[in-house]
Amino acid sequence: MTEYFPNIPTIPFEGKDSKNPLAFRHYNPDEMVGDKSMHEHLRFAAAYWHVMRNELGDPFGSGTALMPWDDGSDSLDNALKRVPVFFEFLKKTGIDYYCFHDRDISPEGSTLAETHRHLDRVVSELESFQQESGKKLLWGTACLFSHPRYAQGAATSPYADVFAYGASQIKHALEATHRLGGEGYVFWGGREGYATLLNTDMKRELDHLATMLHMAVDHAKKIGFTGQFYIEPKPREPSTHQYDSDAAACLNFLREYDLLDHFKLNLETNHATLAGHTMEHELEVAIGANALGSIDANRGDELIGWDTDQFPTNIYQTTQIMLRVLKMGGFTTGGLNFDAKRRRESHHPDDLFYAHIGGMDAFARGLKIAHNIIQDGGQGQFIENRYASYDTGIGAEIESKASSLDALDTYAQSITPPSLPSGRQEMLENNLNDFLA
Amino acid sequence: MTEYFPNIPTIPFEGKDSKNPLAFRHYNPDEMVGDKSMHEHLRFAAAYWHVMRNELGDPFGSGTALMPWDDGSDSLDNALKRVPVFFEFLKKTGIDYYCFHDRDISPEGSTLAETHRHLDRVVSELESFQQESGKKLLWGTACLFSHPRYAQGAATSPYADVFAYGASQIKHALEATHRLGGEGYVFWGGREGYATLLNTDMKRELDHLATMLHMAVDHAKKIGFTGQFYIEPKPREPSTHQYDSDAAACLNFLREYDLLDHFKLNLETNHATLAGHTMEHELEVAIGANALGSIDANRGDELIGWDTDQFPTNIYQTTQIMLRVLKMGGFTTGGLNFDAKRRRESHHPDDLFYAHIGGMDAFARGLKIAHNIIQDGGQGQFIENRYASYDTGIGAEIESKASSLDALDTYAQSITPPSLPSGRQEMLENNLNDFLA
Amino acid sequence: MTEYFPNIPTIPFEGKDSKNPLAFRHYNPDEMVGDKSMHEHLRFAAAYWHVMRNELGDPFGSGTALMPWDDGSDSLDNALKRVPVFFEFLKKTGIDYYCFHDRDISPEGSTLAETHRHLDRVVSELESFQQESGKKLLWGTACLFSHPRYAQGAATSPYADVFAYGASQIKHALEATHRLGGEGYVFWGGREGYATLLNTDMKRELDHLATMLHMAVDHAKKIGFTGQFYIEPKPREPSTHQYDSDAAACLNFLREYDLLDHFKLNLETNHATLAGHTMEHELEVAIGANALGSIDANRGDELIGWDTDQFPTNIYQTTQIMLRVLKMGGFTTGGLNFDAKRRRESHHPDDLFYAHIGGMDAFARGLKIAHNIIQDGGQGQFIENRYASYDTGIGAEIESKASSLDALDTYAQSITPPSLPSGRQEMLENNLNDFLA
Amino acid sequence: MTEYFPNIPTIPFEGKDSKNPLAFRHYNPDEMVGDKSMHEHLRFAAAYWHVMRNELGDPFGSGTALMPWDDGSDSLDNALKRVPVFFEFLKKTGIDYYCFHDRDISPEGSTLAETHRHLDRVVSELESFQQESGKKLLWGTACLFSHPRYAQGAATSPYADVFAYGASQIKHALEATHRLGGEGYVFWGGREGYATLLNTDMKRELDHLATMLHMAVDHAKKIGFTGQFYIEPKPREPSTHQYDSDAAACLNFLREYDLLDHFKLNLETNHATLAGHTMEHELEVAIGANALGSIDANRGDELIGWDTDQFPTNIYQTTQIMLRVLKMGGFTTGGLNFDAKRRRESHHPDDLFYAHIGGMDAFARGLKIAHNIIQDGGQGQFIENRYASYDTGIGAEIESKASSLDALDTYAQSITPPSLPSGRQEMLENNLNDFLA
Repeated sequence: MTEYFPNIPTIPFEGKDSKNPLAFRHYNPDEMVGDKSMHEHLRFAAAYWHVMRNELGDPFGSGTALMPWDDGSDSLDNALKRVPVFFEFLKKTGIDYYCFHDRDISPEGSTLAETHRHLDRVVSELESFQQESGKKLLWGTACLFSHPRYAQGAATSPYADVFAYGASQIKHALEATHRLGGEGYVFWGGREGYATLLNTDMKRELDHLATMLHMAVDHAKKIGFTGQFYIEPKPREPSTHQYDSDAAACLNFLREYDLLDHFKLNLETNHATLAGHTMEHELEVAIGANALGSIDANRGDELIGWDTDQFPTNIYQTTQIMLRVLKMGGFTTGGLNFDAKRRRESHHPDDLFYAHIGGMDAFARGLKIAHNIIQDGGQGQFIENRYASYDTGIGAEIESKASSLDALDTYAQSITPPSLPSGRQEMLENNLNDFLA
Repeated sequence: MTEYFPNIPTIPFEGKDSKNPLAFRHYNPDEMVGDKSMHEHLRFAAAYWHVMRNELGDPFGSGTALMPWDDGSDSLDNALKRVPVFFEFLKKTGIDYYCFHDRDISPEGSTLAETHRHLDRVVSELESFQQESGKKLLWGTACLFSHPRYAQGAATSPYADVFAYGASQIKHALEATHRLGGEGYVFWGGREGYATLLNTDMKRELDHLATMLHMAVDHAKKIGFTGQFYIEPKPREPSTHQYDSDAAACLNFLREYDLLDHFKLNLETNHATLAGHTMEHELEVAIGANALGSIDANRGDELIGWDTDQFPTNIYQTTQIMLRVLKMGGFTTGGLNFDAKRRRESHHPDDLFYAHIGGMDAFARGLKIAHNIIQDGGQGQFIENRYASYDTGIGAEIESKASSLDALDTYAQSITPPSLPSGRQEMLENNLNDFLA
Repeated sequence: MTEYFPNIPTIPFEGKDSKNPLAFRHYNPDEMVGDKSMHEHLRFAAAYWHVMRNELGDPFGSGTALMPWDDGSDSLDNALKRVPVFFEFLKKTGIDYYCFHDRDISPEGSTLAETHRHLDRVVSELESFQQESGKKLLWGTACLFSHPRYAQGAATSPYADVFAYGASQIKHALEATHRLGGEGYVFWGGREGYATLLNTDMKRELDHLATMLHMAVDHAKKIGFTGQFYIEPKPREPSTHQYDSDAAACLNFLREYDLLDHFKLNLETNHATLAGHTMEHELEVAIGANALGSIDANRGDELIGWDTDQFPTNIYQTTQIMLRVLKMGGFTTGGLNFDAKRRRESHHPDDLFYAHIGGMDAFARGLKIAHNIIQDGGQGQFIENRYASYDTGIGAEIESKASSLDALDTYAQSITPPSLPSGRQEMLENNLNDFLA
Repeated sequence: MTEYFPNIPTIPFEGKDSKNPLAFRHYNPDEMVGDKSMHEHLRFAAAYWHVMRNELGDPFGSGTALMPWDDGSDSLDNALKRVPVFFEFLKKTGIDYYCFHDRDISPEGSTLAETHRHLDRVVSELESFQQESGKKLLWGTACLFSHPRYAQGAATSPYADVFAYGASQIKHALEATHRLGGEGYVFWGGREGYATLLNTDMKRELDHLATMLHMAVDHAKKIGFTGQFYIEPKPREPSTHQYDSDAAACLNFLREYDLLDHFKLNLETNHATLAGHTMEHELEVAIGANALGSIDANRGDELIGWDTDQFPTNIYQTTQIMLRVLKMGGFTTGGLNFDAKRRRESHHPDDLFYAHIGGMDAFARGLKIAHNIIQDGGQGQFIENRYASYDTGIGAEIESKASSLDALDTYAQSITPPSLPSGRQEMLENNLNDFLA
């Protein structure tokens, strides 16, 4: 059997003092953290598009990635040849899950029917590799943003035929996901938004988008797919504005169109920061609506105004993410999908390994730190104490909706004017640093 | 009777060739634009806080504003002395409406009861000046962000006594608004958010916020106030994050807590851009939910990351705003409130007049241009044509929710792959410039 | 002779009331504005890369541009076939100048020598079309950012062989520019910066960059090229940081390495805003150092964090730019190069015309408005008066460097504490709007 | 003797497992790191303005800070009473240095002469406390941004009398600094910029600014002050644009006006990020020009567009800063001045201690990590190897300026086209994380 990464071993766990760049220092899959092993907590997934298809081009330059296994063609044959490479990558990194768009794994044909046949063929190949390797599909999706026909939107295209094309792709991508045992299906609407309001009927477009999502929900029921649907927020890029701009905008849309029972959110760190929010903010918003589903693990550069999709290596961020994941009781269908790409300068196949090792170790550290913070209990206790005045007396009346402006006016006039305890932000920040090791 | 701006005449309309900086070139209050006069369309309001109370300080320097009528004290007497100055300003500028926070017009007393008595006293004075002048109150509100007791939130304070104090202030501010015939009541939650998530229970805070808003709705019913309630979005400043961060976040909150029937949005241009949106985007989002209520008219500097609250002088922006106002059929209870402040360097009382004249003229131009665009009809027609494929055939089936992924898959396989007409953004931008004169 | 844009006439001037989208309303090339005609003032140039080579792809989708004259290959033959198309475009739009990178006009060959021969061949073709049409080359440049070999820099590459390749390209691009009578030569260092400081020796890279520029200066002297060299600032994209990040950074570099006598700046609006500056700021900085050379005319979206390179249609911006161009006495070797691209949705060849017409009309309006402002003289007079205290007395002593802290301390203690006149920003903004028509 | 912080002990070092929030875990002043002790490396300074004068107000609310030792007046007597409080703070935190503006330590009088007498009186008090405690002055400066007379600039004021007032303040602040043995003197020009270009003569203002700096240099010579002058870059806030906008802009200005021999830079993290740069970028720019002088230690929030001046607790940032400080051989006259303020919610005096402890510990960790990285040598070695092609052969010729475009063209045509090694960014980022503990 051909080995595509011959100089790369299965990445071992060597502990924190290792100097081997091709070893884990922190990610030890079967090590227990609380009552689950690391790999059960983290549910890492690799993104087919970044690992296998990202040529590392940018708007000012062509691709640099070395992919000796790829003949550069858009043929079905070439698509099939990528499958074993990807599974070797999964095996050597010890990543349990993967994610794909339909067009990552299989090419357009000369007709739509042929396109669907290509997809079926590659899905068969993936199925067989899944069975053999035990690797699983975290989620699938359809790529409705790359082809010129989607330049003005897919579900929100002004052209009904394009909507129909998108529906056709979604149907087949959903069925492929179902066949591969995918635990979820994602909608990321890169072109579902506008370039300019001068030519856009926003309300009509949003109605169409909701219609498409309802069709997907109906089709899932029809075919017996019980995986989780997700929407992935991002404010802009490629569009000037994307309708699913942040967690709150997505939830507002889902509520308006009666879709909240059927969808959760797939949150991405770099999309959060592009929207002007921290990732932990977006996580809290989603959790507050019981809608946190899955996570696209990466990192942005807050000084840069586009989606840099860097590998997540910031321990503060991985800690904040894992704190929220632990607090909500862990992932169910979701996981940590590395929607992250190497820099254009890191074009060697080895860099794929360095990059994922770094991300996995950073999340393993974040998991352990978050677990320690929760075990310690001090931070949670501080918050509980801070709101204790709502647990009894006038606060409890307020919370039980038993009060009124009149009653509170009378109460307020009867008390000594309140003065506040300190919010202690700096003390809490110091405390957080105590756990960072 | 004392004249406080002795060198300022009642500002005349002199037409576009005037060289007089103290004259209107475009705002001619009784000139008809379509079937309404300019002043009926625009419903300008002056902000008591900026006109009378803004000392023009900033985080790096103290106030510069010259206010010879003000003794600098926080006394009730001084508060009363400001009233005739303000009404002279309204009269000379020809602004029909005004807006206030409770603490702009009257000071805290030594007890909460005294604070409320102060408010009553000043409201009497305003009432009498309103009657005499015919000026009206667009909306009132309570200042729940300036006093140290609200440093950690008002409705979202971790401390129930602070919530009670806020409720007391809201009750009296709402009653004052009612008594003065105010057409609306605004909630802007400058401290309703967080400085850090490390000490914050976001969900509990949001529950409290909704409870407060429901209490206000109930109290309005009790006292017979039928004016419109508004929420005003802003993403941050002073807080790190404010819960009412943008139109979508507000709508999501209103839907979640069953408040959407009772609230509309009060949108501000600079708050929109701080949230990363254009003002026209926020207007469209609000209109789409039938929730556009009123507008805080100003302008931000997109290269600056805080609320600069500059006077609105950009004709592109005033045109885009008035296009949406006209399309929704004009304001009902709302209007254009100049939530704008002079630069710290523009400290002379005359600058108050230059600043408002500029803003009023810019909106008058925007109104006329928007009216011409709508009369011309070309831009609207372009959009209608662009979506025409949804008016019949497969598009109409999609819109009527009579289709499915299966049906659309079959359809898509039966047609020639769609190719798109141009979106024509540049042509439309040129067309917009044609109207700008 | 083949016509490539058969449905497009030579664009006529039809005046401001025209409804014809393929006519100028404001740009009337021979109309005099002051003592020069519009086309002499504006010196418009078309960018070969945007007009002929921009496929309108983006990081999330492939190209959409319809280019029926282009066979899609990277052959020399195809390169030659583009030349007449471009000159038809120049003729029909009435644009007098153009700009190119070496790789826009001619492809890489199988060896570097063949690459250079390709360039020579296309330059011959351009030369002949220039002679026939009277069109001229505003400036040329070498593309040292697209090919993978430049992924880690060209003049700032860590690899000397890459530096040598860049030098070779610059030599031939400079000679091509010289042969075509180019009035300038531009350096835009898209990869001259870093992705991360973790692998970068900034000082050594800057030394190398300066060495390359000195070599270009020396080579120009050797071959008799007397055109102007320019550096074009941009802070980031594609790099994390580009050394030529803004006007001040460029000037600092040119001063440090003794290059200021040989270089001026080529400023671009969208690059200015990406750096957090207004274009007028960058223009003032350049003019203050006598280093404003040429302008890349476009527009960014301040709410978007990447280079959107939109066509310039904002009259405020074109006015501010033309005010500075007029104040410095007009362009000498420089001009207004449309470094602007259509939106990805505007993929039809006609959109090339709409887009350039819009930009040309916007600059023609800006020119006329700026001329009127200067003729009126009020704004200039306001500034002169504001600084008048430096024309005599203590101010004149300060300006003549005849004073000292001791002398000024004595003086300050002898005067009434100064109080300031208003800065009158709002009045001046209103005044600016008076000219906008 | 009165104790002003009676519940705060002298902060002890207790090591990394301490749970005491009022103890250091990492900062152990006399512990050696390499050949210097921690306190010699770090040279911490407290900022008089933040510790003693910051009332914790913001643009939307008044001050919250509890300062029981302060009578709230602007009297000389109150100013003198603050001195022992500050020195108790320095003693208990173990901070060796401090910094001040003239107006932080002493109030304006009714005349300028009285203002100067006030300053002299407080300086005497500081002098006596310095002698007794051994605490030292890192640098002094004059506050030329707060008083309304400086609203339109100080050295760049359009009004010569204001320039003279500024000069008078600088003279006395410089003399006070000299008398107190200050090791440096800082210029931060909060108002040296513009609010709008519509009323500004940028060139004339810059000339005046340079004149003022030359006067300060001359006066220092006259009085025998041999401390270091610094300029502190910041792009905006309070101004729309400040001339000293970033390190490169400052260096350009210093070069243009022949001031580079006399000035170094005082860099601040939050000012760097407001300018769109990382702090490490600004440090490299300054070091490259041999102009890194001192550091204002704080942290910004990259998602927030104003100067949040938070306490530095991010270990990544403190590591990157200390790496540069160590590489340049350590501070000479400069140090780490905590230009950082507590959040408005952290209003208790204890929070001053938590905040500074956190900052000091974060820098102690950064110092130890940076030292370990340098000892390890791997990161430095990677960079050296990366540029090795310039050490010999064609690269050495380039560096020695012995080559030319012609020679390099010939060379490039003779070699195999270069292909690049990977930039290994992800591997290096992982390696950095290995040191973080």
